[in-house]
Amino acid sequence: MVFWKKLFNPSDVPTSSQASLFPGEALEMTRDSLGESRIFFSTDREIDLYELEELCDAVGWARRPLRKVKKALEHSFLVVSMWEVRGNRRRLIGFARATSDYAFNATIWDVVVHPSFQNKGLGKALMKYMIKKLRGEDISNITLFADPQVIDFYRRLGFVLDPEGIKGMFWYPD
Amino acid sequence: MVFWKKLFNPSDVPTSSQASLFPGEALEMTRDSLGESRIFFSTDREIDLYELEELCDAVGWARRPLRKVKKALEHSFLVVSMWEVRGNRRRLIGFARATSDYAFNATIWDVVVHPSFQNKGLGKALMKYMIKKLRGEDISNITLFADPQVIDFYRRLGFVLDPEGIKGMFWYPD
Repeated sequence: MVFWKKLFNPSDVPTSSQASLFPGEALEMTRDSLGESRIFFSTDREIDLYELEELCDAVGWARRPLRKVKKALEHSFLVVSMWEVRGNRRRLIGFARATSDYAFNATIWDVVVHPSFQNKGLGKALMKYMIKKLRGEDISNITLFADPQVIDFYRRLGFVLDPEGIKGMFWYPD
Repeated sequence: MVFWKKLFNPSDVPTSSQASLFPGEALEMTRDSLGESRIFFSTDREIDLYELEELCDAVGWARRPLRKVKKALEHSFLVVSMWEVRGNRRRLIGFARATSDYAFNATIWDVVVHPSFQNKGLGKALMKYMIKKLRGEDISNITLFADPQVIDFYRRLGFVLDPEGIKGMFWYPD
């Protein structure tokens, strides 16, 4: 079990060499859980596409053309990446993004945590970070489409299934 | 019952005074169904916000701050409006918009047809126009969140409910 504290307090951003290596918001982890490493979040969308592809490969997602992934990142409203920083090295261990009309609605896509870092509460921390950022932009309607095996995960975060009978639908050609 | 023909053929855009009044794509309707009026579609997002509010009022939607509506229109990927053109007058009778990452996903929001123009096949025509435009931009995953009373409407257009158990979810604060 992993604990974090004051997750979203800007004063948490450390002034150590780790912070200068990687400007982002720090997630304080207990030493026991991750040894000498620390977890950082970033909204910088300049992500190495090959590193992102490697992360998506690790969870078994179908590969997508990098040209289109690049375009999707550019045109997402919010891109959040999660990094393990250990000494002077950093590693991409999680990712999520959201499309939005910048006013009312946001839809979260491509939520991924590297298998080696799952079951440590990091997916929850990543989603809470997303929600906090979206709420900070005055987005009131945060939506997503959940695969069956992660419905309970999102439910624990406050997501509601089919509220008032509203149903997610996907278009396919006739 | 209303019929249309060659709905999405650009050559349909007429060269009459109606067309110069309103540059858009024409939906050919039988004279019987709409008298001397014609229906046009447009992707021009410079829509009179008060006219849009009036349309949304007509279907009983809750009012939203125009400042936010303006922002949402600016940041939508696609904005489609539907107009009745009669002589030298035009009237906003339908609307829909979509957010997108410009690459993989689009989500359709705020689909509305004025009550006086419902049950004429115009909602279907509006949605088909949306889908055609999104497909033309190489968007493969077209999604929406449907209220219970319109699920069958979207199903007839090829939208599938909860494919492979994927569920639409909405976030609410704890």
